[in-house]
Amino acid sequence: MILQSVPSDGSKGDRTRNRILDEATALASVGGVGSVTLGPLAERLGMSKSGLFAHFRSKEALQVELLVRAAERFTAMTIEPLRNEPDKAKRLQRFFENWLDWIDKPPLGEGTANSCPILAAYFEFDSVPGPVRDTAARHFDELHGLIRRLAAAAVPDADAPALCAAVSGLALSHVVRVGLLRETGARETSLRAFHALLAHPPRGASS
Amino acid sequence: MILQSVPSDGSKGDRTRNRILDEATALASVGGVGSVTLGPLAERLGMSKSGLFAHFRSKEALQVELLVRAAERFTAMTIEPLRNEPDKAKRLQRFFENWLDWIDKPPLGEGTANSCPILAAYFEFDSVPGPVRDTAARHFDELHGLIRRLAAAAVPDADAPALCAAVSGLALSHVVRVGLLRETGARETSLRAFHALLAHPPRGASS
Repeated sequence: MILQSVPSDGSKGDRTRNRILDEATALASVGGVGSVTLGPLAERLGMSKSGLFAHFRSKEALQVELLVRAAERFTAMTIEPLRNEPDKAKRLQRFFENWLDWIDKPPLGEGTANSCPILAAYFEFDSVPGPVRDTAARHFDELHGLIRRLAAAAVPDADAPALCAAVSGLALSHVVRVGLLRETGARETSLRAFHALLAHPPRGASS
Repeated sequence: MILQSVPSDGSKGDRTRNRILDEATALASVGGVGSVTLGPLAERLGMSKSGLFAHFRSKEALQVELLVRAAERFTAMTIEPLRNEPDKAKRLQRFFENWLDWIDKPPLGEGTANSCPILAAYFEFDSVPGPVRDTAARHFDELHGLIRRLAAAAVPDADAPALCAAVSGLALSHVVRVGLLRETGARETSLRAFHALLAHPPRGASS
């Protein structure tokens, strides 16, 4: 399976690094971020463990880098295209549709069922303090900040925290209905719920 | 840490089985259901691996039993009390509040940060076909069926699938805002979003 690599300056070191991260992403998509450890990964890559170690000094460093890359791709797929939407009020809707795309068509490689490693890492690392949990938390916190700003732009008198909870909730529910329940028509259901939400959003922020 | 055990008939075999499951739940609450394997568990219990094996023939059997027990507790905490609510229209709201309680005050033992092993197991086992994934999927499917029925009772002309997606989404978002983001006021935000949802629910089922 060939995964699309993040652009690099093309040096051999960068190419190797990307190849490691691609293979690590494939591993993570099956067994979770926590399953990515240096020994089995080196074996899959046909590298020595010390060769791998030259690029990533620890399994945690590699796992954090995986999440950073996933977040970059999430941003490229769901947030950057919003610049092309001149109507600020419509950006929340565009963002939500892009998020459904991210969930429905995982861009991390064919056959990867788990489309949001950041979220998956949360459930894996929730009770495991350390850099992986911190990275997942920071990314999700930034995402919530963005959604609150999009919510406030779409609905000026919105209760932005409540609207943000409802929007991110619909996306999380979509993940479960698609991935776990294999629900047919999940996307249409999510979109109907979203449109009902935007027609009557929570208003009047209490804070 | 002492976890409350599911009532048994009090036989020694049942008590041992419950003790195993309590310890396994404590393990799962830190490292996830996938981290529960027979060797380390036997060591924590001061049992021989063959003694443990007499109660659970495989790690999968133990993991499935963990999920079944978590689902029983979820039912006891969130669904059974609904019988005391004579107003059928109010049962959805009561259920949602009970679900928030389940998330905010994990009943699986003090110090267990991960309050929903079923959901956590989904993210762990999403891409790992087998009995653990099947059990998680069956439980979540049953839960969605219940929510759709509660939604239809609360809002007779509701778009029950969309309302169900919105309700379960708010609970999932609550899990992330409490567990990962440690958001203050998460419960109030979730309740405001829920009340706005019930005031203007998605209506007119398309299917």
